[in-house]
Formats: sequence, C-alpha cells, structure tokens
Amino acid sequence: MIVITKNSASEERIAEIVQHIEKAGVQAHVSRGTDRTVIGIIGKAEPALAEHLRSMKDVENVIKISKSYKLASRDFHPDDTVIEIKGVKIGGEHLAIMGGPCAVESPEQIDEIARLVKAAGGQVLRGGAFKPRTGPYSFQGIGVEGLKMMAEAGRKHGLLTITEVMTPEYVDICAEYADILQVGTRNMQNFDLLRKLGSVQTPVLLKRGFSATYDEFLNAAEYILAGGNPNVMLCERGIRTFETYTRNTLDLAAIPVLQSLSHLPVISDPSHGTGRRELVEPMAKASVAAGANGLIIEMHTDPDNSMTGDGVQSLFPDQFANLLKELEQLGKLVGKRYDTPKEPAEYFKTWKI
Amino acid sequence: MIVITKNSASEERIAEIVQHIEKAGVQAHVSRGTDRTVIGIIGKAEPALAEHLRSMKDVENVIKISKSYKLASRDFHPDDTVIEIKGVKIGGEHLAIMGGPCAVESPEQIDEIARLVKAAGGQVLRGGAFKPRTGPYSFQGIGVEGLKMMAEAGRKHGLLTITEVMTPEYVDICAEYADILQVGTRNMQNFDLLRKLGSVQTPVLLKRGFSATYDEFLNAAEYILAGGNPNVMLCERGIRTFETYTRNTLDLAAIPVLQSLSHLPVISDPSHGTGRRELVEPMAKASVAAGANGLIIEMHTDPDNSMTGDGVQSLFPDQFANLLKELEQLGKLVGKRYDTPKEPAEYFKTWKI
Amino acid sequence: MIVITKNSASEERIAEIVQHIEKAGVQAHVSRGTDRTVIGIIGKAEPALAEHLRSMKDVENVIKISKSYKLASRDFHPDDTVIEIKGVKIGGEHLAIMGGPCAVESPEQIDEIARLVKAAGGQVLRGGAFKPRTGPYSFQGIGVEGLKMMAEAGRKHGLLTITEVMTPEYVDICAEYADILQVGTRNMQNFDLLRKLGSVQTPVLLKRGFSATYDEFLNAAEYILAGGNPNVMLCERGIRTFETYTRNTLDLAAIPVLQSLSHLPVISDPSHGTGRRELVEPMAKASVAAGANGLIIEMHTDPDNSMTGDGVQSLFPDQFANLLKELEQLGKLVGKRYDTPKEPAEYFKTWKI
Amino acid sequence: MIVITKNSASEERIAEIVQHIEKAGVQAHVSRGTDRTVIGIIGKAEPALAEHLRSMKDVENVIKISKSYKLASRDFHPDDTVIEIKGVKIGGEHLAIMGGPCAVESPEQIDEIARLVKAAGGQVLRGGAFKPRTGPYSFQGIGVEGLKMMAEAGRKHGLLTITEVMTPEYVDICAEYADILQVGTRNMQNFDLLRKLGSVQTPVLLKRGFSATYDEFLNAAEYILAGGNPNVMLCERGIRTFETYTRNTLDLAAIPVLQSLSHLPVISDPSHGTGRRELVEPMAKASVAAGANGLIIEMHTDPDNSMTGDGVQSLFPDQFANLLKELEQLGKLVGKRYDTPKEPAEYFKTWKI
Repeated sequence: MIVITKNSASEERIAEIVQHIEKAGVQAHVSRGTDRTVIGIIGKAEPALAEHLRSMKDVENVIKISKSYKLASRDFHPDDTVIEIKGVKIGGEHLAIMGGPCAVESPEQIDEIARLVKAAGGQVLRGGAFKPRTGPYSFQGIGVEGLKMMAEAGRKHGLLTITEVMTPEYVDICAEYADILQVGTRNMQNFDLLRKLGSVQTPVLLKRGFSATYDEFLNAAEYILAGGNPNVMLCERGIRTFETYTRNTLDLAAIPVLQSLSHLPVISDPSHGTGRRELVEPMAKASVAAGANGLIIEMHTDPDNSMTGDGVQSLFPDQFANLLKELEQLGKLVGKRYDTPKEPAEYFKTWKI
Repeated sequence: MIVITKNSASEERIAEIVQHIEKAGVQAHVSRGTDRTVIGIIGKAEPALAEHLRSMKDVENVIKISKSYKLASRDFHPDDTVIEIKGVKIGGEHLAIMGGPCAVESPEQIDEIARLVKAAGGQVLRGGAFKPRTGPYSFQGIGVEGLKMMAEAGRKHGLLTITEVMTPEYVDICAEYADILQVGTRNMQNFDLLRKLGSVQTPVLLKRGFSATYDEFLNAAEYILAGGNPNVMLCERGIRTFETYTRNTLDLAAIPVLQSLSHLPVISDPSHGTGRRELVEPMAKASVAAGANGLIIEMHTDPDNSMTGDGVQSLFPDQFANLLKELEQLGKLVGKRYDTPKEPAEYFKTWKI
Repeated sequence: MIVITKNSASEERIAEIVQHIEKAGVQAHVSRGTDRTVIGIIGKAEPALAEHLRSMKDVENVIKISKSYKLASRDFHPDDTVIEIKGVKIGGEHLAIMGGPCAVESPEQIDEIARLVKAAGGQVLRGGAFKPRTGPYSFQGIGVEGLKMMAEAGRKHGLLTITEVMTPEYVDICAEYADILQVGTRNMQNFDLLRKLGSVQTPVLLKRGFSATYDEFLNAAEYILAGGNPNVMLCERGIRTFETYTRNTLDLAAIPVLQSLSHLPVISDPSHGTGRRELVEPMAKASVAAGANGLIIEMHTDPDNSMTGDGVQSLFPDQFANLLKELEQLGKLVGKRYDTPKEPAEYFKTWKI
Repeated sequence: MIVITKNSASEERIAEIVQHIEKAGVQAHVSRGTDRTVIGIIGKAEPALAEHLRSMKDVENVIKISKSYKLASRDFHPDDTVIEIKGVKIGGEHLAIMGGPCAVESPEQIDEIARLVKAAGGQVLRGGAFKPRTGPYSFQGIGVEGLKMMAEAGRKHGLLTITEVMTPEYVDICAEYADILQVGTRNMQNFDLLRKLGSVQTPVLLKRGFSATYDEFLNAAEYILAGGNPNVMLCERGIRTFETYTRNTLDLAAIPVLQSLSHLPVISDPSHGTGRRELVEPMAKASVAAGANGLIIEMHTDPDNSMTGDGVQSLFPDQFANLLKELEQLGKLVGKRYDTPKEPAEYFKTWKI
C-alpha cells in the first residue's frame, strides 16, 4: 500500500500519518519527492487501514498494491479450480456447455429443450423460474413449479441444471431442485444473497454486474468463498457501454484476465452479452478461442412465442447443435474438450426428487 | 408501439405479425417504406406484447412510444408528490437537508452529529447501520444497535432519520427505528427488496443504480409504487463513467429530467456523487440550482477516524453549517425553501421507541 | 513516479530496473513489500522514462505522482488566468456569456441574433461557419462567407465572436475574422491543430473530448500553451455515457475539478451538454452555481428552421434573455459577475474588417 | 423515418409538421395513438429533413429507419469488398496479418522487425513515423525519415507497409511511401482528414474512435468513400469503458456487427485493444474466431527499450511467430486463410522508392 500526500502537507502532518500507520502494526517508509511525499507501507495491513488513510487530511491518494480478495486470488491458489458435479467437471481443460430457455414455461417445453440440449452434447440445462425484470408488469417467472419441471427434465435426460436465485430466502428451495445456482448481474453486489450462498455447498455461477470492474467481481466471489462455499464460477455476460446496437458489450478480455487473477472457472454468456441471435455464434466461438471454461447459451424451440421476449437472442435447436460441433473443433486448438460423462444415468440415480 | 421489419420480410410474414398484434386486442397500421415496413400499434398493449414481437423472426426493432411505468409517471399524476413525515415536507417547493455520518459508530458519535445537523438547519439525520461493502473483509456496520442509537439521537434532537436496508428480511426492523428507508445503488434492481418495500408505508429513498438509465430507475420506483407504497423519493448519486478522478460522475441533468418524467421528489447526493470533500460544496450548490428537492450530505466530526473510510468525502461540521446557509440563499432564487417545523418536539412525541 | 514490480521479479531484474532509472539522472528508492517491490523515483524524470519503465519485463505498473502537464497546472501558476479581449475579461470573477446559433445561415439571421444577444447582456457571439458533422451528407456550414457575416454582426453590436476551426490550414483565416477560436469535441486530440493554435495568440476555447479524462483534457491544453499561446479556455460540454435520453451527460464536477487542477477559465456548454432545450436553463444555473467562468449557449430566432437540426437545443430569444437575468442573480451568490464593457464601441474601433 | 409528437400537440401543429414533410417531396402517414401521434415518412428523404423535424416544437423524437450512410452499407453493396494491394488481398476469406513496432526508431530496428514479420508469415509491416501522443512532451515520432526507413524495409522483405497519417497536409507524403494509410482513433472524426483521404486512392485503415458507435464509425468511413476512395478497412481497437485494468475494452462483437452492416473488411487490433502483452494472444485468437478479416499486432525485438512505451503491449518475435501459426489453424475452422503471394518480389518491383 502506498500513501501519497499533498504538496502542502507539513512535517507534523506526515509524522501523524506515519504514526497512524505504525499503530496498525505495519512499517512506513517515507520518500520525499519533488512535488509529493510518498509513504510506502510494508507488511500485511488490514483493509480498514487503507480506508482510514484515504480519509485523512492532506492524503491525496492511497494506492493498494496487494489485492483486497484472497481466496479468489491465484496468488493463494495457483491451480485451476475444477468443480465436479455428478460426474461433470467444470474448470481447467473442460469445456462446459449450459443451454436452455430464458424461462421455464411448461413441462413439455422444458422436457423437449432438455432432450435437444443433451442430443447436441450439452452438460447443463439452464432455465429461469424466478425472473428479474426491469418493470413490475413484465412476466416474473412461474416460481417453484418451474424449479420442479426443470429438475425433472434434467433427471430424465441426464443433464445438470442451473437456475437463478434472487433473494436469500429462496436459496434453500432453489438448491433443493437445481445443481447450480445463478446470481444475476443485478445481484452481483446483493451482499446478503452472497453471504447466504457462502453458507451452502451448492455450486454458484456468479454473473458479473453489468458495470462491475474485475476487482469488484472478484470481491463479490470472495464473499461466497469466505462464507465457506468453494464452488464458484465466474460468468462474463457483457457490460454496459454507450453502444446501443447490442444489448451489452461482451468483454472477452475478461476471460484471460480473470483466469490470470483467479483460479475459478470462467463461463461466457454470448446470449445476454449481445442480445442478438445472429451474434451468438461468432461470440461463442470467440469466447472459446479466448479460453473460456464454458458457455451459457439460450436456446428455444419456439422463440417467437417465448414468454420473456428474450427469444430475440435464443438460438434455434439446429443452430445450437451445429454450434456445439464447431465449438468442439475450436476447443481442441486451445486445449479444451467436452467432458460429458459416458454413463450419466448412474450419477443421476442419486437425484433428490 | 412501433414494429419495424427487415427488408427481407415477406408479405406472409408481415401478415403473421399483424395477426399476432390483433390477437392481443389492439390495432395494427401498416406503412410500407422504401427499405423497411413499419407497423404502428394503436391502443393500450400489454408489455408482454412488445417482448413477443421483439423476438419474432424478421422483426428488426420494436420501439415503445408509451412508457412502461405508470404510477411513477407525471402523465398519470401531474402534481408534485409531497411526502410529509412528522411535520417535515419533502417534495415540491421544500428543500430537505439530510446530513450525518456514513456509518453509525457509537451513541456519542451519532448524538453529537445529530446536534450539529439540527443546529445547522437540517431536517433528517442519515447514518448506516448495515453497510454494503465491496469486499467481505471491510467494516459491515454495527447492525440493529446502530438503528437504536440513531433513532434515539433523532428523537432527542428533533430530526427525522434515514438508514439503508439491504435485504427484504430487515425491512420491518429498519422501519421500526427509522423514518425513511434507503435503497442503495447496488440494490436498485433487487426486485424482492423493492416488492417488500412496496408492502409497507414507510417512505423510501431509492438511489439510482450507478449504471441505471432514467427509464430503469423509474421502473424500479414503479415496483414500490405498484406494491402500494406511494412514498418514494428518487436519489441521484452519480453514475459510473471512464473518469476516475471522481468516485462517480454526478449526473445533475437527472434532476430536471426525472422531475419532468415523474412527480416524485428528487434528492441529490453530492458526497457519493463525487467522493471528494472539496467537491461537495460546489456540487451541492449546483444541485439546488438545478432544482433538487433535497440533498443528502455526509458530515463527520472526525473524518480522519471514520470507520468506513468514507471520511474522505465527509464535510467537517463548520463546512456543513456554512453550506446550509448558502444553500438557503440559492434556494430562494429557484423557488425552494427549508421547511423545518417550528415545534418539532410535538411531532416527535409519537416516536416509536 | 513509482514503479511496482511483479512478485516474480528476481533481484537481478530489480537491479536492472534501478540501473535504468539511475541512468536517467534520477534516484531510485527500493521498498520490498510482502507481495510486491515498490521503487520510488526521486527527482524530475522525463516523461519518456515512465514509458520505458512501463514496457520493461516484470514491471507491473508505473504510477505517475507528478502531473504530465506543467503550463496548464495550478502548481506552476497559482493565480487564475484572466483573458482580456477588447476590454472583455474572461476568467476569475467574471462571468462570460457566449450566445448565438449553431450555424451562421445568413447576414440577416446573424445580425438579428447578435442584436438579441447584446440586448440580453451577453459578451460574445457564437456561430459556426465550418460544421463538423457525423455524416458527409449533412449541412457542412457556409464557410468563409459565414465568418465574414459573423464578424460584421459582432462589430455592429459590440460583441466578441467565437467560431470553430477544424483543421490547421484554416486557423489563420478564422483568426482573421473571429476573436476566439473554438476546438470542437472531436478535435480535442487533433494534435496538429493544437500545435498550430499554439503558434498564434488568438484566444482558444478548447472543448473537452466527449470521452476525455481531465488529465487528457489538460494535456491537450498543454499542447497549445507549450506552443506559446497562453490564452486558453477549457469548455465542459458533456461526456458520453450509457444514458441516451440526453445527448450527453454534462459533467459539472469538471468545473471545480479543472479549476483546482488548472488556472485556466472553465466555460460550460449546457446546450450540447444536454441536447434538449428544456434542460438548458436548469443546467446553465447549475453550471454557475458550480463556479463556471462562463457559459456558451445556443439561441435561435427560428429553431424550427435552423439549418443544422440543433434547433432542438436552442433557446428562444425570450428564454435566453430571462435566463441571463437569473444567472446574474445566481452569480452574485458565488462571487461572479458580468463584465460587459460600458463603451464597447471604443474597443471595437480597431476591428480588423 | 418516423416522427413522434408530444401528447400536447394540437391538430394544427400536426398539420404544420405534415406540410413540412410534404414540402420535402415525400409522403406522410399519420397514426394517432393513445398517448402519442406517430407520423411515418414514406420515400427517400434528405438527411436535413430529419434534422429540421427534430428541432420543431412538439416533436418528441425522430427515428431514422434507414441508415444515414449508403456507400458503406451492405444494403447497397451485398458482396464483401476485397482490397488488393501488390498482390496481397485484404477482405473476404483472406486473413491479413499486419505486424511491427509502435514507432519506427532506426533503419536497423525496422529492417530486423520486417525480416521477422515476413518470416512469421505476415503480409504487412506496421510502424509509426508520426505519433499522436496525449502530452506534448512525449516522443512524437521521427517523421519523414521514418517513412523512408519503413518503405525500404518493406521493399527489401516483400511486405506491404502501413503508417498513421494525422493531418490532411501529410496525406500525400505518407501515400508516397506507404501502401496503407492509417487513421488513428483520435482522428476518426477529423473530417478534413477524411475528406482528403477520400481524394486519393491509397487504401485506408480507419480506426474506430474509442467512444464511437458503429453508426458513427460507418459514417466516418462514408466520408472517405463518398470522396471517391473505395479502399477502406475498418479497425476495431477497443473502446473506453469504466474498466481500467485493460487500456481499452476490445469490442469483438463489432467484428460480426460491422460485417453485417457493411461490406468493408474488418481488422482487429488486440495490442491497443488491451494494452497488455499477455492478453494479445487470447484476444487475437478470439478475433479470428469472431470472423476478423485481419489483425494488426505490435511486435518489437526489444520492448524494454521501445521509444514510445508501448513496449508493454508488444509481443516478442517468438511469441509473434507462434501466434501466427496458431491463427492459421484457427482460421481454417472459420473459413479464413493467409494470402501471402508466392512471388512477392515481382509485385514489389514497381515500388516507388
């Protein structure tokens, strides 16, 4: 940590700042420059120290050199985290494909889509039962019934399932039915939700807030890890920029950056990341080429009549199947491969419902 | 609502789209242009119709002409909403000043600051008991004890109180102790929290998400209003941009824009909106000149030792008092005035604790 | 300047970096921390040194503590710059009002608008003769004829004139007819244009690039100052964000920030900064309250028929006149006043045409 | 084009607007909705009409349905543009690799790098002679001498050359020495430069402004095309966002979007797009997977001592060579291949120097 003081700081003031630092049990090295004085802090300081220093008079800036997250950092966990769920591995050299509709609509819909996801080579069935919507008058999902329908479809076709959880009180019921719990972009900093997810062991797919920095994203993951749940996947799903042609700007550099800063698997979401069906294929390919550990892709049998209006970014089943074949080829060039258990039925015998 | 179809859409396809529109009980007017066909929709359409149309093949764009929020819109409520709490009016020509520390730290701290806020002419005491923090290792607030300390300080000095609530399950306990519940920027789209706040009558100060559009902001307010709670204030607190010198970019145009789109009071937060003490004064003045219905300002007796590190943006008590005098003069020029009840004690007799 | 090296940097590598620093004639102080090694540089280093260090292997970051601009910085010029042009002062306690149409259209149009600007109390007539337009098929301005029309109108009514110059080769002709040369937002980093403007003495109003940081903005000003032209005004005109309701997001914090970092006058442009007529008045007031040294405002006698389509953000003459009266009152509260020379005619006798 | 009027617009006002439209020689279709009236315009309207309408009183919004650029649009030119320069094809199924240093430093430096680019399989040598720099005290390039050194190195090793031109007056001299002229991100809307480039036939690589929308980018290309130069390549080089870990956010969705809206080749710049050496490889691969027609990559033999400090994003020669091999494999999967003429010497006989 480095403290920079203003031109105008007196000797006494600098002495006070140094005293403040040493009181915290760490050492201060003062370097007087032409315009500014720089105080380097040596030793492991509490995060609160930076905050205190930043608010002291005459302090111009406090620059953290060490990262504020620990468990999420590759510094403390050099090897890739590989999460294994019912025989499916996510992370490392495995390329996980999660596919399905924006929202679960009916038993028939989700069963048919599950069949198609499995046939195409996917490992995980996605589908929302509780939907976060910008306005209160939009379709809000069908709730617990949707969870049950999706669990049944997953069990039948040998797919893991992932669904979004929006509030701490629904974590337990969602974890009962789904294999992976998704935290949506608007909830990345819903800290009570993160704390609750830290208290369970169900794997979590944490979506990046649409205006979150990498640092904030990894700190959000740290909340879950610090709570005791090591099974966290990071998901890049597009950030908000001035460009309105696409729904979001998919930040693919996030993939190698997050993989270098952290050991957690990084999943890309080209559907929400672009909001346009015709861009899903090229951006899915680009995600794999950039080193993604998996993809989460919307697919619908009848996008014209999807209940959420996200049909506009959903692939048709044949597009989805073709894309998965192409991704398998691409994956080989960057050291990634599908890891679909040969006998999934066995793993799924223990299904909870 | 207007639907624009691609160049390539066939006559049959356009007929299908028209049929889809008419099935929803509204009328369709087709205009064929040189490059595109435009279908205007006449009548009150459900939001779901736009979503369906957007996802139909060959539809290039769906442009909503009417707003998706109703109760928050000035179209449906032409007069300014004025919220009266224990004799203090917020909205219309009243300029409300909310001041206090980032976090409640001790009974002595909050009592002394309350005394100073009151003496300077403020109406509301701010202070956090539950703090949303980027990382799990930062100070998270002192919890329910803090609520009690602040309620006691407010009662003693004749100030309303405002505090942040982060999760649905804490709404009731916060509403027991505070007069106004604040929704933080990271929770603007925590829809379960908004729904819960719609079910109580305690006034809510809803902070704009740091990357939320005006439309999303007003839709978030709509969640609370639609739930049955009409007492909502909007708070501009800065948006995230590429500029890093300031913590956020305070978007003051939001004040007149929101006041023209909506009837709800608009409060400005120059403390979080800039993150730098020396900018609070000019931006507070600019907020009043732009027509703000109130301000929420951080003030601390000992910013160097604040527990959250937000001391860097907290005014010293004398700066706060001087600023309030200057704002009163400025307010007169734009038709705004302080509305501090002359006999506050009377109103506060009914205090809950 | 501070150099931070990676965890993995060897002793030899650090020695190499230190050697590199000392070769440049400055001193290096090495502090070894837990995770990183920090090398502080003491003395005035050339900018190129930072660039070299940043590109060296194992260097994680180079943080500049001193600013890269000098002549624009208040550190080197503590007093406000006040630019005097034909008896009109811009900077310090003077509030300068620049008004007029987006584009000069005809002698009658600009003469009538000049009369109205003067009658309302303005000091400077604005008007574009060369217009930067997004597409090649839009109206591009009427060129040199427009310069002449505006100069004549300014002379007749006793107003200074300001016009935009887009390319180095037009600097001389524009300077012949106008008192102030404007650099548009798209040209803030047109370095050849800045260099050319540094070679003349005509005052320059430099508009902030719509995505420029404060640091880049002041470095752009530095180009002009370093060339030998000390007469530079900075203009905040809105930045690009995700919000589309307004044309830009007017960043009013820029006013006090730039005034603290620099001695140059800061002018606000609420017309381009919002792109909506109804927002010009509140944002003009907010600009003055925030401490602006002046305003540049679009006004048109017949906005419905303006040639550029910027009529949508132009005030009507009566709105302009009323606003100026209100700004005068507001200005008094923040120590700013109009400085219209009592006998402008005298100063204008020396007019060049 | 669609015009939307405010709630409050009277019948007479709507009639005036319709009259205005018909005067322009196109038809108006009026649809009265519940809240708004929508006027559709049928026929080819001049851009100026939209601008006029937008500035008329009571007009709430004008939505362009047709694009404002024509020559750049795929609507008017369905087939991919393939630019052939001395036997090298850029566009369509050809994958062009441009490599070299940020700045030309000496004859030896550029000769050695040219040798390495050629040996690795590249087609074009990049190198700056005139450098746009944020501050006036940074290294500004070695000028015309650099042009000559690069032309000589290209000729010797059989590589095309590309260099940046910053101002209209240098277009001719740059075109004399280089095969492709680059317009930098800060000059994307330097309209006088674009007009000048439209008057020559030398191919132009137009970099996207770091805050430009796709629409503005294609309108900038339209300036060059409309001037008579059809040889334009578009270059995505990263946009400015709130993320500071990377220098820019490389927007890879721009590749398929621009290719669908336009017929011009799209080149990706993973060096400036990330600003970090370790991200160049994954983002180069992702660019090819997303369908890029080429890449422009910085490579330096001694990045530690590069003169511009951009060494931090330059690949070492062996990294560059390995990457090109991998890109060739990746390209095959997405239908792209290198097109290095077998006998380049022949084409280079006609070299101008």
